[in-house]
Amino acid sequence: MLYLYTPDQPELYSRLLQEALPGEAIACWPQEVDTAAVTHAAVWAPPAGFFSRFPNLRTVFVMGAGVDKLLQRNEVPQDVALVRLTDAGMAQQMTEYCLIGLLRYQRQMDRYAQQQRDRQWKPLDTQLARDVRVGLLGLGELGGRVAQDLVRLGYRVSGWSLRPRWVENVRCLHGEAGLRELLPQTDVLCCVLPSTPETRRLLDAETLALLPDNAALINAGRGSLIDETALLERLDAGRLRFALLDVFAEEPLPESHPFWTHSHVIITPHVAADTVPEEAARQIAANLRAQAAGRPMTGVVDRRRGY
Amino acid sequence: MLYLYTPDQPELYSRLLQEALPGEAIACWPQEVDTAAVTHAAVWAPPAGFFSRFPNLRTVFVMGAGVDKLLQRNEVPQDVALVRLTDAGMAQQMTEYCLIGLLRYQRQMDRYAQQQRDRQWKPLDTQLARDVRVGLLGLGELGGRVAQDLVRLGYRVSGWSLRPRWVENVRCLHGEAGLRELLPQTDVLCCVLPSTPETRRLLDAETLALLPDNAALINAGRGSLIDETALLERLDAGRLRFALLDVFAEEPLPESHPFWTHSHVIITPHVAADTVPEEAARQIAANLRAQAAGRPMTGVVDRRRGY
Repeated sequence: MLYLYTPDQPELYSRLLQEALPGEAIACWPQEVDTAAVTHAAVWAPPAGFFSRFPNLRTVFVMGAGVDKLLQRNEVPQDVALVRLTDAGMAQQMTEYCLIGLLRYQRQMDRYAQQQRDRQWKPLDTQLARDVRVGLLGLGELGGRVAQDLVRLGYRVSGWSLRPRWVENVRCLHGEAGLRELLPQTDVLCCVLPSTPETRRLLDAETLALLPDNAALINAGRGSLIDETALLERLDAGRLRFALLDVFAEEPLPESHPFWTHSHVIITPHVAADTVPEEAARQIAANLRAQAAGRPMTGVVDRRRGY
Repeated sequence: MLYLYTPDQPELYSRLLQEALPGEAIACWPQEVDTAAVTHAAVWAPPAGFFSRFPNLRTVFVMGAGVDKLLQRNEVPQDVALVRLTDAGMAQQMTEYCLIGLLRYQRQMDRYAQQQRDRQWKPLDTQLARDVRVGLLGLGELGGRVAQDLVRLGYRVSGWSLRPRWVENVRCLHGEAGLRELLPQTDVLCCVLPSTPETRRLLDAETLALLPDNAALINAGRGSLIDETALLERLDAGRLRFALLDVFAEEPLPESHPFWTHSHVIITPHVAADTVPEEAARQIAANLRAQAAGRPMTGVVDRRRGY
């Protein structure tokens, strides 16, 4: 039996999963079931102790791309396969989110907003997409697709990942040396990395200082990637043009945080890439069928890597 | 001889045209030349009386997509071919400009900006590109390409033009009946029409009222398309979510204009699609060679239609 726990749209997910898996027994929290019969769970932010109720759990599908929170809690038994969503409509949304910041930078919408406040009519130099050097941190399933989308839109994209990766039409760098090479050549830095011990505070005072003056930063990955104090210092020093931030060290962002009122910070509340229920249900169903047929699933989490 | 008049980057244009047309005699204003030898001119915003100096002028290349200003002045003799740029890097910029407004609408950046001012952390419903009904007014060389770019990005695009047009993967409507059908089904209306007698005040109080409540408007075409008083009334009544405006009835936009301070109006100073010098020179050179070889040129203006 597949047991579903999601605070968001439980009826919709139940219906979509049942449609995609007509033969499968599916129950949804808070429904009472024979817990011994539950072999699979599909979850988003389940309560503490959730997994221990199901002695025969074999596979947990996480209804998102990031599993850092779940891994931190360390509640999913080691012999249970942890499977995350690999795209499920999120890559396109990530591309869109990056585009919001890229267009703001390239088409100078921040400067035109200031000119509007000053009632100043003054065309600025045209910058073409091909003039903008995008540095993309993260080249996994999401990052790789974002990179290609941005190349198709004409941007000059260089990508970076911890370990070597290859993405068509994208200059790919990796490791610490790669990061040091990439940052000074980046106009807009887009982060779509997961939160792992290795990516923690990847952007601190030292690495942020490698960006050229007036670069812009977009974080659609995880808050832990960035040392927020260092970012604020860099913004206050006028060295960064703006930061578009969707994720934060603490979420919800505390009411007293200086980001809220910073004139060069744009805040969104962790919405860069939402799970699309139809896609998520399709992917979970495909993985369930693959597992039953002895074929490999997509998105199986390597717990040591953290994604 | 090709005579060049452009207030912007004359040296760059001279060099690019000479490189593209190695055999051609090219001069650039304010250079003194034998005016009888000038058969071709490439111009942007030439001074009054400019054309009357050249008795043997055969062809005028306009270094932009819009020829409304030049036609109004009525100074180019009827037997001189008037040729405008048909893309020259402008379509991609138009797509980008439309995307700025589309993403603001779809990804609710206007609402998140308000929430940031209120220090409010509140994720709003995710809208996918395919949920956004784009109404595109103008399906010429620029509009047709913009339509296809937006379809590729996942938007649900319907296009409209005065006369019937066909664009792949785009539902195409035309004429007055088509406009009345399109507007009530449009979430974001993008205007890329030229200024002609037929498009003048196409969007007035009556047609704007056909848009659903909370639709958004993007004007990257010409200011004359819109009755600005009617637009303001609709914005003030809270019936339009926002207007992103690049063009205005009077440019520069007068300092006293209420658009400047309207919280739901975003102003850019006629920069949606700039001519890209490299592309413009390439296109003018190709047309000049086509004409010399007796082949048809692209972008020849039909003066009755106005574009």
